[in-house]
Amino acid sequence: MSTHTLNEPPEQAESIDAPCCVPAQGEGMLQLEEAELLAARFKALSDPNRLRILSIVSSNQDAETCVCDLPEPLGLKQPTVSHHLKILVDAGILHREKRGVWAYFSVVPGALESLGSTLLPKN
Amino acid sequence: MSTHTLNEPPEQAESIDAPCCVPAQGEGMLQLEEAELLAARFKALSDPNRLRILSIVSSNQDAETCVCDLPEPLGLKQPTVSHHLKILVDAGILHREKRGVWAYFSVVPGALESLGSTLLPKN
Repeated sequence: MSTHTLNEPPEQAESIDAPCCVPAQGEGMLQLEEAELLAARFKALSDPNRLRILSIVSSNQDAETCVCDLPEPLGLKQPTVSHHLKILVDAGILHREKRGVWAYFSVVPGALESLGSTLLPKN
Repeated sequence: MSTHTLNEPPEQAESIDAPCCVPAQGEGMLQLEEAELLAARFKALSDPNRLRILSIVSSNQDAETCVCDLPEPLGLKQPTVSHHLKILVDAGILHREKRGVWAYFSVVPGALESLGSTLLPKN
C-alpha cells in the first residue's frame, strides 16, 4: 500500500521524527540557513541613512517614492542614495520600478512586518 | 495676561507649528539621532551567529542562559561566543550577570519587541 520507494533506508525515515544533529541545549535555536537570511535583512537595516530612506518610502503608504525626491530631505548626493536603495532592493525590502527617466520605490508588501515579527515573542 | 517673555521674537513662536528645517518630502522621515540608535541595534542583529545565540537565550523565556551552554549547540569556540555576546549586551539587547565562574544572559525585557515594533505599520 505504501507509495514510498523500497530503496529508502529505514534510518532516513526515522530521522524525520528524531533529528540526529540538534543538541538538546539548542532546541529553540534558529537553523543556520534561516539565520543567514535574516541576518542579511537586518544588515540592510543597519545603516542610519537606509533607515531614513525607508521611513520616507514607507510613510508614502499608498504611493511610490521617486528617487528624485530623496536626496534633498536626506542631505545626500543622488549616487549615495542609489547605493543605499540598491541594498534595500537586494534585501527584498524595497520594490523598484523604472518608468521614463526615474525609478520609483515602494516597500515590498509584508517585508517589514515579517522581519519585525521575528523579533516578537511567539505565542 | 501672557506669561511669555516680551523678549521672545514672534518668528520663534511661529516656528513651533511650522518648523523651518524639514523639507516637505521628508515629513515622515526618522530623525538622524533615532536612525543612528536603531541602526546600531539592527547591526547587532546582522550576524547569523548572534541571531542563533539570541534564539537560544530568548527561548529560555523565564530563565537565564549560562555562557557555558552556548558553544556546543552553535559549534563555536567560547571566545567567539563571548565576542558575539558582548555585542548583543552593548546594543542593549541582552542582559549579563556574572555569578561565580560563569556569566548568565537574558533578553532585556521589551528590547526585541520595541525594535520589532519599529518595523510594523503605525496605526
